Amino acid sequence: MSKRPLLLIGGSSERNQETMGAFQEFPQVEACRLYTKFSARPSSIEAIPFVIEKVRYLRAVRTSIYGRPGACYVDIPADFVNLQVNVNSIKYMECCMSPPVSMAETSAVRMAASVIRNAKQPLLIIGKGAAYAHAEENIKKLVEQYKLPFLPTPMGKGVVPDNHPNCVGAARSRALQFADVIVLFGARLNWILHFGLPPRYQPDVKFIQVDICAEELGNNVKPAVTLLGDISAVSKQLLEELDKTAWEYPPESKWWKTLREKMKSNEAASKELASKKSLPMNYYTVFYHVQEQLPRDCFVVSEGANTMDIGRTVLQNYLPRHRLDAGTFRTMGVGLGFAIAAAMVAKDRSPGQRVICVEGDSAFGFSGMEVETICRYNLPIILLVVNNNGIYQGFDMNTWKETSKFRDPTAVVPPMCLLPNSHYEQIMTAFGGKGYFVETPEELQKSLRQSLADTTKPSLINIMIEPQATRKAQDFHWLTRSNM
Amino acid sequence: MSKRPLLLIGGSSERNQETMGAFQEFPQVEACRLYTKFSARPSSIEAIPFVIEKVRYLRAVRTSIYGRPGACYVDIPADFVNLQVNVNSIKYMECCMSPPVSMAETSAVRMAASVIRNAKQPLLIIGKGAAYAHAEENIKKLVEQYKLPFLPTPMGKGVVPDNHPNCVGAARSRALQFADVIVLFGARLNWILHFGLPPRYQPDVKFIQVDICAEELGNNVKPAVTLLGDISAVSKQLLEELDKTAWEYPPESKWWKTLREKMKSNEAASKELASKKSLPMNYYTVFYHVQEQLPRDCFVVSEGANTMDIGRTVLQNYLPRHRLDAGTFRTMGVGLGFAIAAAMVAKDRSPGQRVICVEGDSAFGFSGMEVETICRYNLPIILLVVNNNGIYQGFDMNTWKETSKFRDPTAVVPPMCLLPNSHYEQIMTAFGGKGYFVETPEELQKSLRQSLADTTKPSLINIMIEPQATRKAQDFHWLTRSNM
Amino acid sequence: MSKRPLLLIGGSSERNQETMGAFQEFPQVEACRLYTKFSARPSSIEAIPFVIEKVRYLRAVRTSIYGRPGACYVDIPADFVNLQVNVNSIKYMECCMSPPVSMAETSAVRMAASVIRNAKQPLLIIGKGAAYAHAEENIKKLVEQYKLPFLPTPMGKGVVPDNHPNCVGAARSRALQFADVIVLFGARLNWILHFGLPPRYQPDVKFIQVDICAEELGNNVKPAVTLLGDISAVSKQLLEELDKTAWEYPPESKWWKTLREKMKSNEAASKELASKKSLPMNYYTVFYHVQEQLPRDCFVVSEGANTMDIGRTVLQNYLPRHRLDAGTFRTMGVGLGFAIAAAMVAKDRSPGQRVICVEGDSAFGFSGMEVETICRYNLPIILLVVNNNGIYQGFDMNTWKETSKFRDPTAVVPPMCLLPNSHYEQIMTAFGGKGYFVETPEELQKSLRQSLADTTKPSLINIMIEPQATRKAQDFHWLTRSNM
Amino acid sequence: MSKRPLLLIGGSSERNQETMGAFQEFPQVEACRLYTKFSARPSSIEAIPFVIEKVRYLRAVRTSIYGRPGACYVDIPADFVNLQVNVNSIKYMECCMSPPVSMAETSAVRMAASVIRNAKQPLLIIGKGAAYAHAEENIKKLVEQYKLPFLPTPMGKGVVPDNHPNCVGAARSRALQFADVIVLFGARLNWILHFGLPPRYQPDVKFIQVDICAEELGNNVKPAVTLLGDISAVSKQLLEELDKTAWEYPPESKWWKTLREKMKSNEAASKELASKKSLPMNYYTVFYHVQEQLPRDCFVVSEGANTMDIGRTVLQNYLPRHRLDAGTFRTMGVGLGFAIAAAMVAKDRSPGQRVICVEGDSAFGFSGMEVETICRYNLPIILLVVNNNGIYQGFDMNTWKETSKFRDPTAVVPPMCLLPNSHYEQIMTAFGGKGYFVETPEELQKSLRQSLADTTKPSLINIMIEPQATRKAQDFHWLTRSNM
Repeated sequence: MSKRPLLLIGGSSERNQETMGAFQEFPQVEACRLYTKFSARPSSIEAIPFVIEKVRYLRAVRTSIYGRPGACYVDIPADFVNLQVNVNSIKYMECCMSPPVSMAETSAVRMAASVIRNAKQPLLIIGKGAAYAHAEENIKKLVEQYKLPFLPTPMGKGVVPDNHPNCVGAARSRALQFADVIVLFGARLNWILHFGLPPRYQPDVKFIQVDICAEELGNNVKPAVTLLGDISAVSKQLLEELDKTAWEYPPESKWWKTLREKMKSNEAASKELASKKSLPMNYYTVFYHVQEQLPRDCFVVSEGANTMDIGRTVLQNYLPRHRLDAGTFRTMGVGLGFAIAAAMVAKDRSPGQRVICVEGDSAFGFSGMEVETICRYNLPIILLVVNNNGIYQGFDMNTWKETSKFRDPTAVVPPMCLLPNSHYEQIMTAFGGKGYFVETPEELQKSLRQSLADTTKPSLINIMIEPQATRKAQDFHWLTRSNM
Repeated sequence: MSKRPLLLIGGSSERNQETMGAFQEFPQVEACRLYTKFSARPSSIEAIPFVIEKVRYLRAVRTSIYGRPGACYVDIPADFVNLQVNVNSIKYMECCMSPPVSMAETSAVRMAASVIRNAKQPLLIIGKGAAYAHAEENIKKLVEQYKLPFLPTPMGKGVVPDNHPNCVGAARSRALQFADVIVLFGARLNWILHFGLPPRYQPDVKFIQVDICAEELGNNVKPAVTLLGDISAVSKQLLEELDKTAWEYPPESKWWKTLREKMKSNEAASKELASKKSLPMNYYTVFYHVQEQLPRDCFVVSEGANTMDIGRTVLQNYLPRHRLDAGTFRTMGVGLGFAIAAAMVAKDRSPGQRVICVEGDSAFGFSGMEVETICRYNLPIILLVVNNNGIYQGFDMNTWKETSKFRDPTAVVPPMCLLPNSHYEQIMTAFGGKGYFVETPEELQKSLRQSLADTTKPSLINIMIEPQATRKAQDFHWLTRSNM
Repeated sequence: MSKRPLLLIGGSSERNQETMGAFQEFPQVEACRLYTKFSARPSSIEAIPFVIEKVRYLRAVRTSIYGRPGACYVDIPADFVNLQVNVNSIKYMECCMSPPVSMAETSAVRMAASVIRNAKQPLLIIGKGAAYAHAEENIKKLVEQYKLPFLPTPMGKGVVPDNHPNCVGAARSRALQFADVIVLFGARLNWILHFGLPPRYQPDVKFIQVDICAEELGNNVKPAVTLLGDISAVSKQLLEELDKTAWEYPPESKWWKTLREKMKSNEAASKELASKKSLPMNYYTVFYHVQEQLPRDCFVVSEGANTMDIGRTVLQNYLPRHRLDAGTFRTMGVGLGFAIAAAMVAKDRSPGQRVICVEGDSAFGFSGMEVETICRYNLPIILLVVNNNGIYQGFDMNTWKETSKFRDPTAVVPPMCLLPNSHYEQIMTAFGGKGYFVETPEELQKSLRQSLADTTKPSLINIMIEPQATRKAQDFHWLTRSNM
Repeated sequence: MSKRPLLLIGGSSERNQETMGAFQEFPQVEACRLYTKFSARPSSIEAIPFVIEKVRYLRAVRTSIYGRPGACYVDIPADFVNLQVNVNSIKYMECCMSPPVSMAETSAVRMAASVIRNAKQPLLIIGKGAAYAHAEENIKKLVEQYKLPFLPTPMGKGVVPDNHPNCVGAARSRALQFADVIVLFGARLNWILHFGLPPRYQPDVKFIQVDICAEELGNNVKPAVTLLGDISAVSKQLLEELDKTAWEYPPESKWWKTLREKMKSNEAASKELASKKSLPMNYYTVFYHVQEQLPRDCFVVSEGANTMDIGRTVLQNYLPRHRLDAGTFRTMGVGLGFAIAAAMVAKDRSPGQRVICVEGDSAFGFSGMEVETICRYNLPIILLVVNNNGIYQGFDMNTWKETSKFRDPTAVVPPMCLLPNSHYEQIMTAFGGKGYFVETPEELQKSLRQSLADTTKPSLINIMIEPQATRKAQDFHWLTRSNM
């Protein structure tokens, strides 16, 4: 995936009706200011290429991909649609060049290498920024050459494959809490990483921040070293610097032992949950069965509360930039849009590639109607709706009926419950796709197998789980809210 | 329906994590500024009642319903949810008083009465503001006592019943174009009313504006008289003033004759369209059959392009504040939310009352997933999806297949087409409601009869119409875009 | 003074250089949003009259004076300055009509009259809104016919003359604190009126709010009666309603006695301070001497902290809309601009009329350079700078030198001190006006006499007062911050 | 000068009075959004250090100096002033580290060096960004080692001294117009540099952009090479790369000859203007005399129209970061504030250092009252007011009187004229400083000599020039508006 700008183009009312109560008259450029890196309205048709595409003047697209990437908004007044201009008055623009690359100061790189070499309990955290920077090759070398443990953030998954032996995702809390040196590759110390503060971290942990954005450096913590620059270029600088001495982090250190033990016990606990035969299924059972059949090159899109959080720990990514989830802002409703965008890319690129979109039932409710779009363009998407009849937790049918029995029709159902046993798969069949309603591991396996086999149409598997199902016990009380 | 404030309560991040990258950290109060009349965040739990409910300090709710009504936003930081305060520190507030009522200047009322009495071709336009002001009784008297023709705006329908003999809705363009005096009751001269300008109006038409909002008066036109005040109170002043002389507008005037003739020919044209036997059905056939069974006390909710515009001319309202459509801003996606809100009111008030929600297929796509909410609370809603396979116009299945045959899977379908023959009724059955797929007038009649008879569950009727169906010919080219 | 719109016209960069780094490129319309009632940029030269002047479409000017008045901003792109358009493409607009007038509901007027008649300790508060509404005639009748005590707000001074026997300004705190019924004419219950709350008011005081703005009604208190409408029209309604019975408030009531006693003792205390012979002078001495010579028809402009607050209690207004001070927002720096605007009006209207601009020395520092403008246009302004060498309090020369002796050049002087003995009068002589430096009552009297006599040029009197001078003792601790 | 953050701290109303009409209640954080890099209000006293100072969490100060520098705003509610908190609840923060340094990609540096070596007519443009980055040493080496001509932008003056033989400022238009390779060090291609477009540049000129801000690269032009990083570090990379081959730009090239000839003729023209003996003086005469006495280490502050533009071409800077003028945004009124800030720095650092503040008379009118501050703190500032009685051009006294004779007092003087012969020097004497009114070269020389000699007090020299004085003829019509 090359650098893809995120450019929103909107339409506003006719210019000569402004202030008169025109159709959908609204200060749209202004309204987009808080949400975008750049927001503007071309003053004339001739100015459109200058504002949108410009090589020479391409601010909107260029701004979207230069520096820290971000969305841009360009507003087109309605009267432009039918306006006629002389074709010669339009200057067509070449596309802007690839984003410029910067590197960290040599002395800072030396200092970072020294801090890493002296670490007792080192940890690399690989963030979304590393994926955007296409830093996978260099970071993988760092991990392997120096035998360092690493942890991906949600959107950093796949930069180094999740099944890499050095991935300590299964001991995430332990790794964060006891590391003495942490190298952040394009990962922000925001709520997802608990702000980098105790009790989730050692008070004197040394952070080495690698980031493209200067203003991000030193946010919430005083870092030991800051490496400002393109994350791929800086990773290469680090590699070259560490290469100068014969050093590797001892693979038999106590730290590796601690981490491996914790991973083992966590994985065992998950596996135990996953292997439970009782019905309805729990999250772990579902995800273990999905993981078994997950194509290695698929895109995984996900949104939801427990569905996204638990799913992320079980479903593995093997390629960078192949996971899209609700991200830092955790806005529900983005999943199907992401899946459609990923499918358009997949179609362009490699015919067989699939998009697996894992949705909580509540999350699916935000934009489930996009299934029509999926069917209209016949996109290679498999939707999994992990259905617990609610947000976090719902009622089963019996409790629901019991509750309903005593209520008059206006009685208020708990706000986190959704209608039990909703047949979301029918949203797919309504538009000609394939739908499955599954209640057992066998049904899940079979429907998934069929969905993967059938490349002629999209499918949706509605997976019923225990309405009260939840995560396995966590070390920290607030972990459920702000886990990676 | 009494005055109902529109108060949005949102949640923002914890205050002590602000600027640190907190969960969903965003300047929400600021972001709502452009969309609301009032937007604020209480500085403490103790301040909440002062900001939200205040009798004494109730700005948000009071602001929502005093003066021209509007939405208000109140932001609650996440940490308030679990914060403990001494119950004695909270002052509970009584609700604010009913909105204050103001009246027009006596001399202006006299002048308005004189202009009306001297009108050759008078017209009353009844807007949403008249409905909000509960002005139905006074305006109906004005219409009947003085034999005046009237026209409702989309949300002004029902203030005086649509089937009232003085309603000239069926001759709308004619009425606007040739009136010499127009009295606007709470109707803005915006794009819906063609800004009050030629060629849609006489250049020297005399407008009498009755409005609660001073800044609205004189917008786009120079009015002959402005009557600032509560629309119900001002209508009463007008009544009392006109009562002083023995006057009525001659029911056998040429103007009445012109209007009646135009209505007759328009109605005949509609009826002809409606009676067409060819299949698929057209819009008029559909709406005539719906209108036949429409309960007189139902709420009619509507959104779409042709569906909303044509539907409005055929479906009649008999009660004020019983029609909700996309309104001035024409934002698609509001229909199901409106229907749910109306159903909550209906449930409270009169057990048998129904909400008929008439959706275009494209409009339904914006928030069709709300059908889950409708089923969860078992709301008395009947959804009609008028399905032409697209926005304005779609393809039929044969054209679609023909188009598809030659395209590879990534070929782009025209952006205004939706997937033909989508089974929207399955969105309803997926959640346990009743669904119908209808293709003939008989199926439509039957399914509607059954839906109205069955008060135990909501239903959705997916009504297939001719994909190229459109409006009947109009007098003005741009009428389709900006009709009332 | 007729209704005068406040319209700001600004200039922005050339449209075709937008997003390119144009000269002073900035989203000015957006930046003005928070400060104005209306902010817009015409899309073409042809649209300018529609945006600015429109009779037919005059939103900016009309919006400024219709409803609650407020400033409007219109942005003109730089390229409009030299753009050529066909003169026939411009539609010239007549001016909009006078603001529409609304009246209060008859029943509310009746209720208000009844509450007033039953009041034991009534009080009228006359605000800026009464002045804007030109309600002087009706409110004066109310005061005189029914023998009611009244209190003006800062900008409400002069609606009824300050020397009217019923003005209880000299017993302000007492009047507010013990009134049982308060009628507010266009006065907001904001910080200037202590939010209408105890301990500055009786907990059960009955407020009758008369205002043009519905949203203002019920702000901070639950009013007994609200009268929404044009303040002059509503005052007339009140007069007519009270006229229906033979009633007046007993002039020998205990309440009047209390108020008169308090006024007498307050005035005695002020007079004692004013008559102090010690030098430097104090505030009261200064203002008593100014008041003696103040022309009855002059505009009084004022800004400052103690200067504005104490000055307001001594300097009397006899005409409505002839006092301009820093108002609700208390922004320093507005005084000279106000004085210049008032002088332009005065010049237009009555040749001999003077503007007396009373400035604190710190306030004068904000826009003292406007003296050049005053001299350039030779405006009939007399500036009084009441100079205490600081904000609230400064140092005298001896203390200053003592302080300076021990400091190196970079030592920080207390931030509220200004340079002692600054010769502000030279700012006037620098531009050819007349300047006076006065230290005694005699010098003050003489210089003021000369300034008033000389109608050929503006003058500035720099009045030295005791640097530690302050107000007389107040009943309430926080009175100094939020007095009327 | 080290990196100095620009942090604005403002005060807003008390939190518990918000929405009630509090003293100066306003959404200040929101209002500052468009003007600042970061704008926030701490939620509690404990949060202040986290928001303002933070080492660990210092966002406001850190944000101000990391990345492209910019102003930040922090809002303090009024109630914080007297609020008491436990001292132990406050975490004191160390200051943040120096801004992180990044470097350009090695391959891009190689490409840039190659483009430079192959240039026929090269030019370096040294911008404000180079000064902020403290890049003077490396850029000077580049200029000298490789014999390259350079041009400073207004705030880039002094990075390499203006009197350096390679400075081609005196042939600015020629240099821009015919260069085939231009290296921009921290200079934006905005209106000051004519957007980098023809006819002010060759259509195929190759730009090499060196900048700290990725989004700036490619703005308005398609650059040949972009070097993203700290400008000092990147300059060093360029030096090291160019060092690898034995190359210098031939000092006897045709390009150098052209430039030297143009400089010679321009300087001769200026000198001729400067040597004119006629009175009143013209701009060039004034600035040549000032330049003769200008201390080499002084700060030069300047604002105005012609005064700033012409002054910049004559007054030389020898040290980086010693020139402050109205900059990109050209906002008038900043000069005296800049001078005061520079003087505070000078006082701290080197006792004898002076600030020379060169003001147009109109510019001085914006904040001339700050002279009080200058005198209060006895700052080492010499103010020169270059007085032509107006903006761009004014009237002389005779024309003024002639004009006035026929006008009644309200006649409008042309808006660009100020009062002739204003004695601005009295603004200085009013506060105890030294003032001079000069009309001849001799008076100017003498007063400047005295001002420089007297280190005990500030002074102001009011320099009368020919009211119709203007620039010498320019090659481009629009040069006067957008010159560097």
